[in-house]
Amino acid sequence: MSGSEIEQLVQLLAKLPGLGPRSARRAALHLLKRRENLLEPLARAIAAAAEKVRACSVCGNLDTRDPCLVCVDPRRDAETICVVENVADLWAIERTASFRGRYHVLGGVLSALDGIGPDDLNVAGLVRRIGEGGIREVILAMGATVDGQTTAHYVTDRLQGAGVTISRLAHGVPVGGELDYLDDGTLTAALKARRPF
Amino acid sequence: MSGSEIEQLVQLLAKLPGLGPRSARRAALHLLKRRENLLEPLARAIAAAAEKVRACSVCGNLDTRDPCLVCVDPRRDAETICVVENVADLWAIERTASFRGRYHVLGGVLSALDGIGPDDLNVAGLVRRIGEGGIREVILAMGATVDGQTTAHYVTDRLQGAGVTISRLAHGVPVGGELDYLDDGTLTAALKARRPF
Repeated sequence: MSGSEIEQLVQLLAKLPGLGPRSARRAALHLLKRRENLLEPLARAIAAAAEKVRACSVCGNLDTRDPCLVCVDPRRDAETICVVENVADLWAIERTASFRGRYHVLGGVLSALDGIGPDDLNVAGLVRRIGEGGIREVILAMGATVDGQTTAHYVTDRLQGAGVTISRLAHGVPVGGELDYLDDGTLTAALKARRPF
Repeated sequence: MSGSEIEQLVQLLAKLPGLGPRSARRAALHLLKRRENLLEPLARAIAAAAEKVRACSVCGNLDTRDPCLVCVDPRRDAETICVVENVADLWAIERTASFRGRYHVLGGVLSALDGIGPDDLNVAGLVRRIGEGGIREVILAMGATVDGQTTAHYVTDRLQGAGVTISRLAHGVPVGGELDYLDDGTLTAALKARRPF
């Protein structure tokens, strides 16, 4: 492959999650073949994102304004904060359109293996927001993993005595899921949390 | 997901081969989190590629110069042309470092299904290059697919009487391949093309 510009493009594309060296080459070729429809618009989109997108100083969401649109929207319930691991999870919940409160992005989960401790997460920001008053409920929406649940317990400890209701997402059978394919942990959790029909 | 700049970035990333809507969102977040290490360098790399990379007017390779580095390299054998379907295949052969001739990129293969006819491929350019003289051998390096082989036959027909040797890649057992997992067609081809040991 000749042309250091192409080489450079391939190497940077290969750093994206989901693209390896081979698929990065395919992506680079795809871009170079579609100069006007894809390469130039993508260059503009990336430059615009680099220039304008910032982390919200209140909740940690990514947006072109600070505070972000979720934090300033008066139609949203300011009394409920959903605590998520990262912005991807925030987007996932937004896509369901079933939550109308606000968010707090921790920026990760506690992980002894990855060396992520309490100081690496934005828990202090959450404590401060709740200290300012006006929050009624905190929903812990961490993943149902060991690290996610450890983090949920840690956040709960830090919020003791803050006078807010703390809840977590329900664990159970995923919608559309067949029992036969479920792991024992999920099935046990679903049984324990059974509800009247 | 708020912020039309982010939305725009995700939509363009989702057009890359190998990235769907979900992985495009992950890639966009990955970029936004690594502003200085990845987002800004990628913006520069894409802009540089958009500005500088062109298709070689001789062989169709992509490079920052025209004719491309392969076409002007005096150490390469100018008498042998390897005909490939696309630039990705050219790069694949270059990576083996086992071919020191030049190339000709057809820009695809004949395909009734996809409506790609002879006029959509750069066969005329190949005929012209051979007509200019100095070419001894043409290696047809199309894939061992029905469309690839149809295209190889078509190119062979077009080069009848041009006074060049026409060869094709050997078909057979891939290096490291186990017979048990091979399809019948490959095994038949490998048997037919058996060589003294």
